[in-house]
Amino acid sequence: MNNKPIGIFDSGVGGVTVLKELQKVLPNEDYVYIGDTASFPYGSKSKKTIIELCKKRIENLIDMEVKVIVIACGTATSQALEEMKKIFNIPIIGIIKPTVKYLKDKNYKDIGVIATTGTIRSNGWEENIRKNIPDARVQNKACPLLAPMAEEGWIDNEIAKLAVHEYIKDIKNIEALILGCTHYPLFKKIIEKELDSHVDIINTGEMVAEELKEFIYKNNLENKNNGKGSTKIFLTDLECNFINVAKKLMQKEIINIQKID
Amino acid sequence: MNNKPIGIFDSGVGGVTVLKELQKVLPNEDYVYIGDTASFPYGSKSKKTIIELCKKRIENLIDMEVKVIVIACGTATSQALEEMKKIFNIPIIGIIKPTVKYLKDKNYKDIGVIATTGTIRSNGWEENIRKNIPDARVQNKACPLLAPMAEEGWIDNEIAKLAVHEYIKDIKNIEALILGCTHYPLFKKIIEKELDSHVDIINTGEMVAEELKEFIYKNNLENKNNGKGSTKIFLTDLECNFINVAKKLMQKEIINIQKID
Repeated sequence: MNNKPIGIFDSGVGGVTVLKELQKVLPNEDYVYIGDTASFPYGSKSKKTIIELCKKRIENLIDMEVKVIVIACGTATSQALEEMKKIFNIPIIGIIKPTVKYLKDKNYKDIGVIATTGTIRSNGWEENIRKNIPDARVQNKACPLLAPMAEEGWIDNEIAKLAVHEYIKDIKNIEALILGCTHYPLFKKIIEKELDSHVDIINTGEMVAEELKEFIYKNNLENKNNGKGSTKIFLTDLECNFINVAKKLMQKEIINIQKID
Repeated sequence: MNNKPIGIFDSGVGGVTVLKELQKVLPNEDYVYIGDTASFPYGSKSKKTIIELCKKRIENLIDMEVKVIVIACGTATSQALEEMKKIFNIPIIGIIKPTVKYLKDKNYKDIGVIATTGTIRSNGWEENIRKNIPDARVQNKACPLLAPMAEEGWIDNEIAKLAVHEYIKDIKNIEALILGCTHYPLFKKIIEKELDSHVDIINTGEMVAEELKEFIYKNNLENKNNGKGSTKIFLTDLECNFINVAKKLMQKEIINIQKID
């Protein structure tokens, strides 16, 4: 069991921001990543469709004999995680719970959330925050173009800067801003410039990595095999900018990308 | 039969650019427009999904007793028109055929096509152009962010200008540029500034309007009822920017918008 890989999936390249954090805290683990590029974007799809897509991706990962699954996607976490936990026996970790735990530990009350339209509409973030921090004041903003821009590789040009400004200019007086879509850490430097320096910009990948590490150690699931930590990447559609964007993000060559149906 | 409405559909607000042209040449007709905003964008979806969506929208329009259907969407025309013609008995007009007829009449040989990723990949435009103008030289460019920008209402800001520039800067020495997605006429003023003044920027809606007018008169289908020309708009999801964008485009209040499942 220990030497089985960790499974992770997202609608596209966004989840690589999470993968990167997992690799930092658990470098000896093997990872299998599915980017559902054929179905991108999840953010504008109905809950029913997202549940169907998540089922398929989790079945793919179970077929690959992973020991635990990380849903590295804000939309999928907010719309489908509870449903997936009912259907599947395998442990599944989403991005919301560990992030809200961190907010509570830090005693933040004024919290901004930027995410896809689907995630904001589902109210997944705000509901979870209020359940744990009842007196929190939450400012939500849907940013439908940011994930598509990231998939296009427009993460550090003038267009990205203007789009980020347009989306977050009205969020005021916050202590923390949740990047509620895993694509958004790709714009972190730009976002930093738009906000007061004291605002804690939350890359959910870091919180997920802590949660996963705790889970792995608590259940004695750490990989003791070779300590090298391999990564296999599968995409549902290879004709996309995944490689270019992932390369910028990981700051190394991405090899070993295969097509999955 | 004559007094039945004309049916028209698109993935979102783009088809309104076509509707506007139809109303210019056939002002006395009644129109029923479906914007499939719940399924937007079509441009990144698989052919199979687009065929399913088109079937549903055409069934909706047939239930509303339209006399002819206009597919006011580049992606749906290129991926699903032929299939729809096999399934349904009702006359269906897409945006490619009338546009290619115009290109041939004008004797254009150097032609640019900008469209969604799905449309460019399907090769629908280039195939049709080559069939009719065998010695044409076609430059294709997929512009995955333009239709989402139009749906967001970003059609005349700095972001739209930079995005249009980024997409069309490499298209050189053309006589005509086809706006192969019905959202793109929303950016026409910006596109004009990017191109040499002699380039014919083709709003497919104008060609579709000519084709429809010819069809209506040839088959004695003109509306002789009251000469007022009503427009009913149905959207599959009301929570969108449709009204704002359509208002800019039509330069009048858009009323009478209803939800359809």
